[in-house]
Amino acid sequence: MDLAQKKCVPCERGTLPMQKEAAARLMKQVSGWQLLQISGVDAIEKKYKFRDFAEAMMFVNKVAALAEEEGHHPDIKISWNKVTLTLWTHAIKGLSENDFIMAAKIDAL
Amino acid sequence: MDLAQKKCVPCERGTLPMQKEAAARLMKQVSGWQLLQISGVDAIEKKYKFRDFAEAMMFVNKVAALAEEEGHHPDIKISWNKVTLTLWTHAIKGLSENDFIMAAKIDAL
Repeated sequence: MDLAQKKCVPCERGTLPMQKEAAARLMKQVSGWQLLQISGVDAIEKKYKFRDFAEAMMFVNKVAALAEEEGHHPDIKISWNKVTLTLWTHAIKGLSENDFIMAAKIDAL
Repeated sequence: MDLAQKKCVPCERGTLPMQKEAAARLMKQVSGWQLLQISGVDAIEKKYKFRDFAEAMMFVNKVAALAEEEGHHPDIKISWNKVTLTLWTHAIKGLSENDFIMAAKIDAL
């Protein structure tokens, strides 16, 4: 099933963060995202550049609406026309399929 | 004149970044902001905590509207219910009165 068609679901108790190999496989289904570590926690990040701040904020508000719908919220950094989104699953201190579902849905915006 | 009543104005060519003493004086007219350096550039930053993401985004959109009005845009970082605003004047690689005017106007939101 296409990632963008799935829904984010709450992690089950005791779910382990995704292994590097599984993450690498899902990385192929999203576009422009980078795997990185934030304080030792695996995460994925994508940087966007817009014409100006107004356009950046329009994008951020679309991402925000989607995040509320899915109950999964990226960290968002706005620097005038630049936006950085960072996704990881706080509850399991690492990546889950939810992060890639969100990434695919954001790609599809 | 009260900072929050002033308007941000474009920096004149050759304007120098504000000295520490002048910044320290203006810091007394804003609330909850911290002086810090970002890659060697003086800046001011304030952290906010909201009830949830929706409330954080409502605040961010108010700040965004104000930033467009004044033509002066803080960096904005959103992490679910937490928002960090960072202000400095890119054109002069340091602090100008505009940063404190924006800070005071944000305080007044």
